[in-house]
Amino acid sequence: MRNDLLLRAALGEPTDRVPVWMMRQAGRVLPQYRKIRAGVKDFKEFLAHPELTAEATLQPVSEWDVDAAIIFSDILVIPEAMGFPFEMVENTGPIFTKKINTINDIKALNIVSDETFINPTLETIRLVKKEITGQLPLIGFCGAPWTIFAYMLEGKSGKDFSRARRFLLDEPEAAQLLLEKITQSSIYYLKQQIKNGADIIQIFDTWAGILGYSLFKQYSFPYLQKLFLAIAEMEVPIIIFLRGCPYGIRSLSLLPKAVIGLDWMQIPAEARALAGPNLTLQGNLDPSLLYASEERIRSETLSMLKDFGSLHTIANLGHGLYPDIDKEKARIFVDTVKSFRF
Amino acid sequence: MRNDLLLRAALGEPTDRVPVWMMRQAGRVLPQYRKIRAGVKDFKEFLAHPELTAEATLQPVSEWDVDAAIIFSDILVIPEAMGFPFEMVENTGPIFTKKINTINDIKALNIVSDETFINPTLETIRLVKKEITGQLPLIGFCGAPWTIFAYMLEGKSGKDFSRARRFLLDEPEAAQLLLEKITQSSIYYLKQQIKNGADIIQIFDTWAGILGYSLFKQYSFPYLQKLFLAIAEMEVPIIIFLRGCPYGIRSLSLLPKAVIGLDWMQIPAEARALAGPNLTLQGNLDPSLLYASEERIRSETLSMLKDFGSLHTIANLGHGLYPDIDKEKARIFVDTVKSFRF
Repeated sequence: MRNDLLLRAALGEPTDRVPVWMMRQAGRVLPQYRKIRAGVKDFKEFLAHPELTAEATLQPVSEWDVDAAIIFSDILVIPEAMGFPFEMVENTGPIFTKKINTINDIKALNIVSDETFINPTLETIRLVKKEITGQLPLIGFCGAPWTIFAYMLEGKSGKDFSRARRFLLDEPEAAQLLLEKITQSSIYYLKQQIKNGADIIQIFDTWAGILGYSLFKQYSFPYLQKLFLAIAEMEVPIIIFLRGCPYGIRSLSLLPKAVIGLDWMQIPAEARALAGPNLTLQGNLDPSLLYASEERIRSETLSMLKDFGSLHTIANLGHGLYPDIDKEKARIFVDTVKSFRF
Repeated sequence: MRNDLLLRAALGEPTDRVPVWMMRQAGRVLPQYRKIRAGVKDFKEFLAHPELTAEATLQPVSEWDVDAAIIFSDILVIPEAMGFPFEMVENTGPIFTKKINTINDIKALNIVSDETFINPTLETIRLVKKEITGQLPLIGFCGAPWTIFAYMLEGKSGKDFSRARRFLLDEPEAAQLLLEKITQSSIYYLKQQIKNGADIIQIFDTWAGILGYSLFKQYSFPYLQKLFLAIAEMEVPIIIFLRGCPYGIRSLSLLPKAVIGLDWMQIPAEARALAGPNLTLQGNLDPSLLYASEERIRSETLSMLKDFGSLHTIANLGHGLYPDIDKEKARIFVDTVKSFRF
């Protein structure tokens, strides 16, 4: 592979420079994405067209020359494939059309075990691989079991997901069944992604941080661990992104060769102390700093790189690019990382 | 004072047992609150009736025999008093009726310097003090400058407050002017609360955690510090509550005798390491654990108390009571703390 910096950094091998990509690099920040997106009815229609999602996947590579492509998809592909569909409402986010009230609603859901509903993602991977094989790594992804569970129980995005957290305690048996079904579905999904060409995986536990330590240990970590260990057999690196969850960093450090994706609220030195010396960390510039002046973006990026150190580091933002960020500001971030040498 | 446990723990003095109160203890969890609330048109109408807010303030003391009362009010009293009114929309939250776009919108706002708009809060304090003077401490409060700023810029509650964060970087001069006006208004407001009888203050920086370290240092901490130091002159203890902001704990430890209120994502031992040995910590049971069984609430509460240790500790939840929590479950939490001895 012409540029395997990301894979080598993920495995803890030394690299000439720190590799860089950006969460949500494919999408609304790019005018060329907004153009192809405008040609279809809505977001879900867009996801159903692999030739479009493949193009969206490649756009940030052409635009910024980042060190990896990440498939254009959505973490809610899995609940939908389980029989729990969503609508994407403009300016609101996803809304599920069914509701989970009892264990029977969960028993009615499938474990994903064939390609019917995930084929658009897999076809996207196949199309993208035709373009970048031998060039750059392709990142596959899914949501963590708890995060998917949180969306499904809440029925939409939320701030506290207190309905989802309440369900864990009111209906522990039902909650475990759903978490298990999501985990099994995600194992199948990621394995198919890897078989079709994904070189590295990221698992998003975006809502880990609203669980306190006690509920995280019980309802997030065991399923993350199961998913991680099943996928680790395929011998691709796995990044686990956590938001707002310092105790999670310590738990993840128990997983052999995990890469830990940090949100922007973590201070690199403190995350390193929690993770121990051997794991690779990915992160974590505050995405809102891309609203700042060129000079500030450069100095904040350099300061972040120095805080992380040269080894075991992948540069990224601490959360996805906000859609109203200027793509030239994102370029300053990428270029600053790429031109920096320790 | 018959029960000054909270004040003594806040000052770092030894106490026979750990004092306990609950954020949002006055409000929808209690049927007796829902009853008096039903007698008026809406939440804002309720706030305008000090005889009702005083009653709501005292209800949790009668119900659970907690170690302090906290005035029933809202942090958005300050923006309203500055000339930036809000409506409270049922099931949605606050919506501001004006919008801040430029520095001129900020120049048009007042610094609160008379009692006109804050009088209902002050009258609530006077009424409550008639009942509990010599009995229990009364907690006054306000929002932290950054948190109030975040609501004002966003126009409502949010998840990421990315408009507010963008404004910090796009319009730093305007942002500083607004933060300064909020700070000055809050200093006046808290001083009047104390003069009218508040025995201890809590400042809520609920949205500190969506600022990364760099923006927190620049736009939250300096204003928190200014507010803290101005109020500390009045010689009452001051609790500063932070959500999702571990670097904030370290910053606050620089403030002499501050009490740090912890959210439920902080592990007590790690918070203690960040805060140093001398400050009192308040926290931090995951409020969703009050959906659990009696047995689990007891064991989680005991485990939290042991993690905090006997000195420099105030027991609380890590966030406000959720409105659908059973008041008997809250009682188990309070009683478990009150009967525990190290």
